[in-house]
Formats: sequence, C-alpha cells, structure tokens
Amino acid sequence: MENPNQKSVELMDSKTLLLFSDDLDRALAAFVIANGAAAMDSQVTIFFAFWGLNVLRKQEGSAVRKDLLSKMFGWMMPRGADRLKLSKMHMFGMGTSMMKFVMKKKNVQVLGNLISSARQAGVRFVACSMSMDVMGITKEELMDHVEVGGVATFLGAADQSNMTLFI
Amino acid sequence: MENPNQKSVELMDSKTLLLFSDDLDRALAAFVIANGAAAMDSQVTIFFAFWGLNVLRKQEGSAVRKDLLSKMFGWMMPRGADRLKLSKMHMFGMGTSMMKFVMKKKNVQVLGNLISSARQAGVRFVACSMSMDVMGITKEELMDHVEVGGVATFLGAADQSNMTLFI
Amino acid sequence: MENPNQKSVELMDSKTLLLFSDDLDRALAAFVIANGAAAMDSQVTIFFAFWGLNVLRKQEGSAVRKDLLSKMFGWMMPRGADRLKLSKMHMFGMGTSMMKFVMKKKNVQVLGNLISSARQAGVRFVACSMSMDVMGITKEELMDHVEVGGVATFLGAADQSNMTLFI
Repeated sequence: MENPNQKSVELMDSKTLLLFSDDLDRALAAFVIANGAAAMDSQVTIFFAFWGLNVLRKQEGSAVRKDLLSKMFGWMMPRGADRLKLSKMHMFGMGTSMMKFVMKKKNVQVLGNLISSARQAGVRFVACSMSMDVMGITKEELMDHVEVGGVATFLGAADQSNMTLFI
Repeated sequence: MENPNQKSVELMDSKTLLLFSDDLDRALAAFVIANGAAAMDSQVTIFFAFWGLNVLRKQEGSAVRKDLLSKMFGWMMPRGADRLKLSKMHMFGMGTSMMKFVMKKKNVQVLGNLISSARQAGVRFVACSMSMDVMGITKEELMDHVEVGGVATFLGAADQSNMTLFI
Repeated sequence: MENPNQKSVELMDSKTLLLFSDDLDRALAAFVIANGAAAMDSQVTIFFAFWGLNVLRKQEGSAVRKDLLSKMFGWMMPRGADRLKLSKMHMFGMGTSMMKFVMKKKNVQVLGNLISSARQAGVRFVACSMSMDVMGITKEELMDHVEVGGVATFLGAADQSNMTLFI
C-alpha cells in the first residue's frame, strides 16, 4: 500500500485515443475501439487533435465571426461525421458511399451512431485547444458538451491508461 | 500476491499491434517490430483490421461466392504482401520497386520473409471479424491458420501488453 | 522490493514516440507531445524510422559519396523540418504555408523551435539504423548528436514507457 506506484497500477486499465485524423475509416476504428473498451468497463478518453477536430464539428455553420484564414480552413475541411471520406478508395465519393452502404446493409453501426453510443457510455471527449487555435475553430462550432484541453490533459489521461493509441 | 493487479503486471511485457494499413512501408514496420519483440521473448499479437486485412490475403483468388459489392472491394484492394504499395513515392510502381530492390541488395528481409519469421516465432495473427464482414472477405481468402476475432479480442490482448501500437 | 516487476513499474512513466512519418502535421504532433511530456518530467525517446528520418536531415547537402539509388531517394525526400509538407491540404505549398503563417501569428511554436526545445529538455533522439541503411542516409546527413539504434533500442525504450505511440 505504501508503494507510490500503486495508484497508477490501479487505474491502469483506462484507454486514451488521440484521434488525429479525419479519415472516415480511422474515425470508425477509434469509435469501435472506444465503444468496445467502454463496454468492458474501461474509462475511455478521446482527444481530438488537428484534422480529428473535424469529427466534432457541427454540420450547420455557426454565426461565429472569423478572420479570413480561419474561414478558409473552415470551408476546406469536412464538417462533422457525415462528411468524412475514406483514406483510400474515396474515388470522388463512390468508394465512401459504397462503404457506408455496405455497413448499413450488414448492420454495422455508422459513425454517427457510434459517436452517440460513446457519449452515452461516458466516453470523455476532449478537443485539443492548440489545434482549435491554429485552425480557428471555436467551441461553438463543435458538438455540445465537449471538453477543451491541451497536451497536459492528454498526457494526464495517458498516464492513467494501459493503452494509448495515436490514430 | 493478493494484489489483484499482480496478474496484469506480470504479463505486462506482451506487445499488441493493430495493423490498420496496407501500405508496404507500414506493414514492414509492423513486422520488423513484431519479429524484434518475439526475439526478445515477448508474446506478440497482430490484429489486422480494415486495409490491414489485405496483408493476409492469398495471392490467388479463391472460389468463394460473393455479392457484387464484395467482389468490387476484392478487385480494388491489393492481394497479399507482394502487392502492397508504399504510402509515398509509389510513383506508378517505380518507387515501390526501387525500395524492394534496395532492400534485397542490402539483405534487409522482404515482407514475405518477415511474415514467415513472425509465424515461426509464434506471433499471433488475428483478423478483425467486423472488417471481414464489411469488406466481404471470407476466411478462405486469408492466409491459413489465422484467428478471427473482434474488438474484444484486440482489447484483451492489449490489456496484457505494455505496448499497443496503431499502425 | 523482491517483486521482479518493480523496476518496470518504477520507470513506467517514460514515453516513447516512433515517428514514422515526415508529414509536417504529424511531426508537429510528435514534438508537441514530446515537449509536453518532458515538461512534466518524463524521460522521452523519439525513434525516427523510415520517412521520419527526413525530419532529422540537415538542410544543406553533405559531401557523402552515395550510389545512384541512395542519391535518388535523397533527392526525392524532404531535407529537414523546414521542408516538410502537410499530409492533407498541402495544395502545391499553399496550404502548408498558410498553416505556418497562422501558427506564427498565433505564437504557436514552429517545428524548428519545437525540435530545439526538445533537445534542450533532454529528449533522446534515435535514428533507425535499418531505415538509414535502406534509404542510403548516413549519420553525417543527420542533425548532430543523434543516436543510431535498431528495433531493440526502440523496444528497450518502450519497455520503460507507459505510453508508446506510432505516429
């Protein structure tokens, strides 16, 4: 009990996912893993950094005032889970649509559902503050009830995890 | 000994690799790491998900009956280790061939050999069942003696590992 | 004290990053994490493999004699932190420049500074020997005071870490 490392060992089965990408396939992987781990009673944190922030964006634009560069980033990047593309075989939308169609047909949950399930299961969503700053994305433009945090928040979660993935 | 976390600490030096990609360079990295860890007496599990499944595909087609979409995915994706491409500088095959040529010349093991070595060293190969389902890939089309498992299998392996990489 | 696993538990808060990519965004992520962890008193190792080696390359060419293939790889790959490109939205340089401009404006440290900070904070830089061999890159062409090591060096560092990321 006097072991100073005891605490970290006890908390050791949390999971932290750094979702860096906004590829549909990688976002799917992250949320399948997050939901699986939550179902096995692990505490899960997803840290959305850089392109990964786009997964959290609301579909409808918001009335936030921005400078030109932030606006340009905003236009060029996908807005939310329904707009993501496959990292390969996107083929001007055909591959991505095909994949979505097949997933629906085979009763595999689509990304939107996986995100809702994760929220309901208590998965913690943290948006990277530095990425928001660089890309000019404000909290209003993101899904509700998302935490904002920096690299220390990410590392704090990782320190309590026995698995941290960069996705 | 009564410490309930003892077990996980003891098993802690297993390694789990989630191979998500079918880029030649990333597959090489995964197998170099797997062989290295196995040589250092770690238990290694490679979980092949999404595009990573293609690394396990047999080169020759099999007589499996499929619906049209599964057939299309099958045609468009590379069949097995010898057909993979570099993630960068593929240059219509030239870059990939150059890389393979250099590796041969410098006596670096090619991917096919690394896969055989891994199998002989007892590395566990698990094909992701959900990915197989979505892409319409059956067990017959994969390398022999591959396990099929879901996210729980992956997380179970990760829980016994002190290193889990998403590649 | 007699616990044979004590040692690994004690050292457990080191961090190991395998930087496989030479995308500007991923290199930035790696160095933000490395600097953050170093600031929180973790021992950090960055293992530069494959394309990741390019982050360590000196900008000026060196007088090293090479065979033709090594020369070709050398020409085609970016030389050092200032020449890296975004993984997405590079747009013939425009996107990458825009990102750099915004980072400067918002006082986010650019990659070159992050690399210097990491060195000063004692982050360990290891260049992958096998990748150097395959790509024909010599130690002279890399930043000074970089260690050269193989997969065993990487796995040794990972075994003392509670977080190992493949970036």
